[in-house]
Amino acid sequence: MHIVAVGGSDAGISAALRAREVDPGTEVTVVAADAYPNFSICGIPYYVSGEVTHWRNLAHRTSADLEATGMRLRLDTTARHIDVSGHKLLVTGPDGTEELIGYDQLVIGTGAVPVRPPIAGLSELGPADGVHLLHSMDDTFAIMRTLEEDNPASAVIVGAGYIGLEMADALSVRGLAVTQIEQLPEVLPTVSTSLGALVHAELEDRGVNVLTGTAVKAISRAGNGEPARLRVDAVTADGQEVTRHASMVLVVTGVRPETALAAGAGASLGAGRAITVDRAMRTGIPDVYAAGDCVITHHRLLGETYLPLGTTAHKQGRVAGENAAGGRREFAGSLGTQVVKIFDHAAARTGLRHHEAVQAGYTPLTVASEADDHKAYYPGSHRIAMRWIGDRDTGLLLGVQLFGHKHAEIAKRIDIAATAIYNGMTIDAISDLDLSYTPPLGSPWDAIQAGAQAWMRQVPIS
Amino acid sequence: MHIVAVGGSDAGISAALRAREVDPGTEVTVVAADAYPNFSICGIPYYVSGEVTHWRNLAHRTSADLEATGMRLRLDTTARHIDVSGHKLLVTGPDGTEELIGYDQLVIGTGAVPVRPPIAGLSELGPADGVHLLHSMDDTFAIMRTLEEDNPASAVIVGAGYIGLEMADALSVRGLAVTQIEQLPEVLPTVSTSLGALVHAELEDRGVNVLTGTAVKAISRAGNGEPARLRVDAVTADGQEVTRHASMVLVVTGVRPETALAAGAGASLGAGRAITVDRAMRTGIPDVYAAGDCVITHHRLLGETYLPLGTTAHKQGRVAGENAAGGRREFAGSLGTQVVKIFDHAAARTGLRHHEAVQAGYTPLTVASEADDHKAYYPGSHRIAMRWIGDRDTGLLLGVQLFGHKHAEIAKRIDIAATAIYNGMTIDAISDLDLSYTPPLGSPWDAIQAGAQAWMRQVPIS
Repeated sequence: MHIVAVGGSDAGISAALRAREVDPGTEVTVVAADAYPNFSICGIPYYVSGEVTHWRNLAHRTSADLEATGMRLRLDTTARHIDVSGHKLLVTGPDGTEELIGYDQLVIGTGAVPVRPPIAGLSELGPADGVHLLHSMDDTFAIMRTLEEDNPASAVIVGAGYIGLEMADALSVRGLAVTQIEQLPEVLPTVSTSLGALVHAELEDRGVNVLTGTAVKAISRAGNGEPARLRVDAVTADGQEVTRHASMVLVVTGVRPETALAAGAGASLGAGRAITVDRAMRTGIPDVYAAGDCVITHHRLLGETYLPLGTTAHKQGRVAGENAAGGRREFAGSLGTQVVKIFDHAAARTGLRHHEAVQAGYTPLTVASEADDHKAYYPGSHRIAMRWIGDRDTGLLLGVQLFGHKHAEIAKRIDIAATAIYNGMTIDAISDLDLSYTPPLGSPWDAIQAGAQAWMRQVPIS
Repeated sequence: MHIVAVGGSDAGISAALRAREVDPGTEVTVVAADAYPNFSICGIPYYVSGEVTHWRNLAHRTSADLEATGMRLRLDTTARHIDVSGHKLLVTGPDGTEELIGYDQLVIGTGAVPVRPPIAGLSELGPADGVHLLHSMDDTFAIMRTLEEDNPASAVIVGAGYIGLEMADALSVRGLAVTQIEQLPEVLPTVSTSLGALVHAELEDRGVNVLTGTAVKAISRAGNGEPARLRVDAVTADGQEVTRHASMVLVVTGVRPETALAAGAGASLGAGRAITVDRAMRTGIPDVYAAGDCVITHHRLLGETYLPLGTTAHKQGRVAGENAAGGRREFAGSLGTQVVKIFDHAAARTGLRHHEAVQAGYTPLTVASEADDHKAYYPGSHRIAMRWIGDRDTGLLLGVQLFGHKHAEIAKRIDIAATAIYNGMTIDAISDLDLSYTPPLGSPWDAIQAGAQAWMRQVPIS
């Protein structure tokens, strides 16, 4: 039995690790297009900020660690074509020569590539000009060259999703003056606008110039006499023109699935034009699985969607690897659980936003509330801002969003909510959970239960 | 409708608040034996340590807050007797006069009193000698008088449960040399001995002299020439005599339910000689509910037991209050979830220990593991020591214990496990949970999932 995983990031490596774990007799090869297998892409902002001191530290495991599990790594090797009936994968190796690798089971984990938004000048300008996309280690090295060689005083970040916010934090920590431009009405569009406004305020408190509802139209080299080498022209929702200058520009406006290899072999595409897979991560092509940012996402409340996240890629890859090795596991589904640190604060969400709940056929009620992370009489307590989304008709918990200090256990509190939603709990039942309490670390009714009770007070007791 | 709650602590106040909330037309009276209604008994160690600067700050709500909800407070008023058929409560007021208070529904929340272990000299010595129990605000004031007037240099703490550990922390913070003596083989007996050993090491690292497996036999006034005013004589498990001297002694070896009022009215006693109640918190006496530290605890995995905790008292009181006001709610049951801060660390548990699982008829397997609280490449990461207890036959998650730095989100991670156990999850399914991730606050597989996977590796894949 020979399992080949295409992709050296979360999904491919997770598949390879799991296949070796469940059947140590299985031969496993990972084909990775770059030289950085199992790198933590989510950690890049902290390398850029200087908090992670060497890029090699971003590896979840070294190549030696991976090979010690018994897998074979084929680095700088690009998968070109799948011969489905012949069970062969055509690859181009580091020296450009083509080779056919036979497989019994194939796992495609080709991931995603950055979206290139329709901004004039973006295709003409590049890293040498201080204009960057960010998705890979090579992109990271290019950014670091700009930072270290050009010593830029300022940056414009186009996009205010997770990576955009983390990079605003990172570049501010490095001392750059940062302007963040977001087309949508508020930053961090994966949470409610009113919660995003708290993130917005945190950015401004830390000196980031935030322009929301503002679409970037053009990036160009600045002329003589302009205050920095790059010029960014944008337009606000009400049609006002805005210009910013900066020494570097970072465009981080999302990703799209990389599906060419799978589509070339006949895989069908679904939500977000990602590879269609079933819950066993089967593509429908005989003996070909796919996982990670290149595939559709089964969401426990929304059905099929496209919601690429590292955690999901790990889980899907593990399922694909287990099944490729003869197992019978299914991906249990995503809840879109996410957390992001922005300076000294954290924002987190799980489940559905209000409008998503409407789209999914629920009758949602969203209730805003606040609670202390621990008893306020004990030093160092912080307020947590919450949004609770539940179904008026059934009382079902649909979504929770939290914002507060990074030491307010925001991340693990959202995980309590994620565990509750996973199990189909009602908001009323949250008060029945036996959660821990000591004054320095919580309250007799945890913040999570205070939020649930605030929601319940807005609906009649049945 | 007039509801009377006996007890001004968690259960009684929760009942009164909930009754007013669900039916604002209900008249509610709280009869409290002292002048400190709704005080946070769990916060006392942080007042003793000086971290809470005034004892009034320990109030969850002030008397004015409570009265603003529409309840009536009868402070310094002791409930003596229940006239069940007459629906009257006999009380003694602050000036010693007796009075009958009529009720339609009664909620008994008389709480618990400290156990007085059979130690020679304990009944003869008291606060004036520097010998203290600790359960009430009056006990707290007595301890503070000893600390402030006698300025003791050293303390012996008898008992190493939650309160004993918190007081070792608190008195060390105040600069006292602390000796902690525990009769059982390890400190913090509510977790596995091997995890308790980590707490033990933390205590010793912070200068606490810890004697385990050591029973205190006598406390006495020291003679001339002895190094401090009090002498504590103890004996180790293997029969060796041990003597310690200290300026003060604190005896914190647990509590027993205060049941005289209920038993006098005909209530039956169950586990731990606590008041028997059903899940609606009914005592069986017509129109009399009971809740909190004075009643048996319905445990979701163990059935009826006695496990007094503030969180449980809040929940039971809320159920009793809702039902007394005409509702139909049931206490969903405890999982014994607890967390304690010891200096810069936290220890937490939920569910069953190994031996409890055996007693409950399971075939438990306990697996020890460790994981990082967040990606180690990001500064400030901490290791979390874990114990996972599951049933070999069914894979059911039965219990989790965690120990790590107080910033390692130990408290809310144990709550993820508590939420999983509440919902009857298997350990395998923990890997299916969609938990949050960002490198400064977690890992792609959270520590909780790493612990579950370590457990799974010890059982054959079915």
